[in-house]
Amino acid sequence: MSGLSSIPVRVAADGDACHGNALAILHEVRHALERLISTGEATRIDLHALPFGAGDEAWLTALLGTGEVLATIEALGPTSVQETAIPGVWLVDYRNAEGQRLALHLEVTCIPGILRTQCRELDTAVATLDTRLSAATPGDSHPLS
Amino acid sequence: MSGLSSIPVRVAADGDACHGNALAILHEVRHALERLISTGEATRIDLHALPFGAGDEAWLTALLGTGEVLATIEALGPTSVQETAIPGVWLVDYRNAEGQRLALHLEVTCIPGILRTQCRELDTAVATLDTRLSAATPGDSHPLS
Repeated sequence: MSGLSSIPVRVAADGDACHGNALAILHEVRHALERLISTGEATRIDLHALPFGAGDEAWLTALLGTGEVLATIEALGPTSVQETAIPGVWLVDYRNAEGQRLALHLEVTCIPGILRTQCRELDTAVATLDTRLSAATPGDSHPLS
Repeated sequence: MSGLSSIPVRVAADGDACHGNALAILHEVRHALERLISTGEATRIDLHALPFGAGDEAWLTALLGTGEVLATIEALGPTSVQETAIPGVWLVDYRNAEGQRLALHLEVTCIPGILRTQCRELDTAVATLDTRLSAATPGDSHPLS
């Protein structure tokens, strides 16, 4: 019997341990990991799509733990990408400019897409470099001053 | 005439503007970007392989600018990965536990390899998840307390 199958039944029968949806998500994560390993397919799980009891999110994130990589992306608002202690499982927290959460996703992937340079950006890279070089003042300590 | 070809000549003729090696590296970055776009091949440039004049590193990093993504990896020591303002160009700064720099690389790639979950880690992911679930205390607010 796997660790996963041994836990949810006990919890579901336990009225005051309201981690049923958190455990359902972990079950989904487990399947997604198996899919990632066997086919390379990534999975995104919207943690706000299922109702969470109080403390469920904290319980889920504590169970997933903290991995080595933490990234922040400053786009429309701050987004954080935290690798969990489970390789291939990432917690992606989208915020607006006021710091309010817009979305919270688990991504089961080797690298969350938001961290990658997109092809459409890459097409502008050489022109961007040339523009910055043209604007540079070579003798100055700061090239764009 | 490209921006790149217009700048180095002027600088090379200017004795007190000692950014020759920094400009050589930017030339290399430009070629690496073209290679990344045309073939998908990534390039790593060791910034300590060429001698830098005082201020050259600061000049180079200021010219490359700062992009949206900043990541830290806590492994043997802290490593930071800063996207530059040039899409596909990343500055990777490796430090030991004492914070001393071990290496400084420019990576021209859609995503630096150090941020990706490696296949050998992925193989342990399901077992790691099961272990954490087996150790969990479902009724507690902290699952691994």
